Amino acid sequence: MTDSSDILQQLQQTVMDRLNAEPDSSYVASLAHKGLDAILKKVGEEATETVMAAKDGDVDKLVYEVADLWFHTIVLLAQQGSSAQAVISELERRTGVSGLTEKAARTNT
Amino acid sequence: MTDSSDILQQLQQTVMDRLNAEPDSSYVASLAHKGLDAILKKVGEEATETVMAAKDGDVDKLVYEVADLWFHTIVLLAQQGSSAQAVISELERRTGVSGLTEKAARTNT
Amino acid sequence: MTDSSDILQQLQQTVMDRLNAEPDSSYVASLAHKGLDAILKKVGEEATETVMAAKDGDVDKLVYEVADLWFHTIVLLAQQGSSAQAVISELERRTGVSGLTEKAARTNT
Amino acid sequence: MTDSSDILQQLQQTVMDRLNAEPDSSYVASLAHKGLDAILKKVGEEATETVMAAKDGDVDKLVYEVADLWFHTIVLLAQQGSSAQAVISELERRTGVSGLTEKAARTNT
Repeated sequence: MTDSSDILQQLQQTVMDRLNAEPDSSYVASLAHKGLDAILKKVGEEATETVMAAKDGDVDKLVYEVADLWFHTIVLLAQQGSSAQAVISELERRTGVSGLTEKAARTNT
Repeated sequence: MTDSSDILQQLQQTVMDRLNAEPDSSYVASLAHKGLDAILKKVGEEATETVMAAKDGDVDKLVYEVADLWFHTIVLLAQQGSSAQAVISELERRTGVSGLTEKAARTNT
Repeated sequence: MTDSSDILQQLQQTVMDRLNAEPDSSYVASLAHKGLDAILKKVGEEATETVMAAKDGDVDKLVYEVADLWFHTIVLLAQQGSSAQAVISELERRTGVSGLTEKAARTNT
Repeated sequence: MTDSSDILQQLQQTVMDRLNAEPDSSYVASLAHKGLDAILKKVGEEATETVMAAKDGDVDKLVYEVADLWFHTIVLLAQQGSSAQAVISELERRTGVSGLTEKAARTNT
């Protein structure tokens, strides 16, 4: 069964595999080859497009732009030696979702 | 077992539960009460802080800022009637991770 | 004698002249033809590049990126029926520079 | 006679005067005391608000936000040892306004 964990982990793995490949072999390889600043420009650009889509009240476009934004932050994290998993762990830590999960796990036993 | 799917789904649920609560009951309720522009300002702010953390080469701070950015996009999606799950589905669709998952599933049988 | 007033006013005039010209006649015409969102993407992009140049501590690049940012806001203002002069007036109003000018003017008499 | 040259130069001078004053003596002193990252966060924030005002089609608000954006880039330039004048010179250089001014000057003789 596919869940979002699989998706993020596989996306992360795909990005890492492509990061150091030949520049013309994929979009990620091409972007990574241009270096950190090129990736950061994309992060800034996609954040602006997210704001614009939200102001348009276009939910489909908003989802599309947030996906673009998340994707480029995953490329950024990979290029900096980190991962989407580290972000998920940070979200878990700060929001106390961990506690909820633990409780749910106990309920299931 | 905890996985990132659980985390994002539970975070999404937590955000949705808090979205229309009393403004002073939580950070999410307070932010949502201020309206769309307040949420978008936070998205822009966290994107800028992500860029700054990356330029500092501070990976821990980068993870922290990307978590902030993802968190505020989840609040934005919820306020606009969508969800993190829609973003995951879009990432799955465009990167062909779906196909990889399917292949992996077949390999496992 | 050339001063910055001349520069901004002439730049504003040049931008306005080019705004509705044939798309392939100049960069401004091409950008304006693409519409508001294309201009706003450039504003977001140049703001990100300004932040990056400052983090690099590269002052020449910073000046270059701020010039890019100001330029694209002037295109934006012109496309929305306003002008750099309106921004100068707002800066004058809020910072009380007007008062300083008045004082200086009196000193000179 | 007041012109925009006077305004930008006096604003630049005011910002420079306040930059290293006691943190609680003015907004500029307070912001500069917090350091580069605090100034850059404001630049990112004001760029986002500029995009939002433009999407709202609110021209008065747009002028206000662009003024905020220019103001914080002037604080940034001053903090980095440069000036609004350097930006004006760069705009003059790249747009060939210099040439136009020269031509206008010759016409006036």
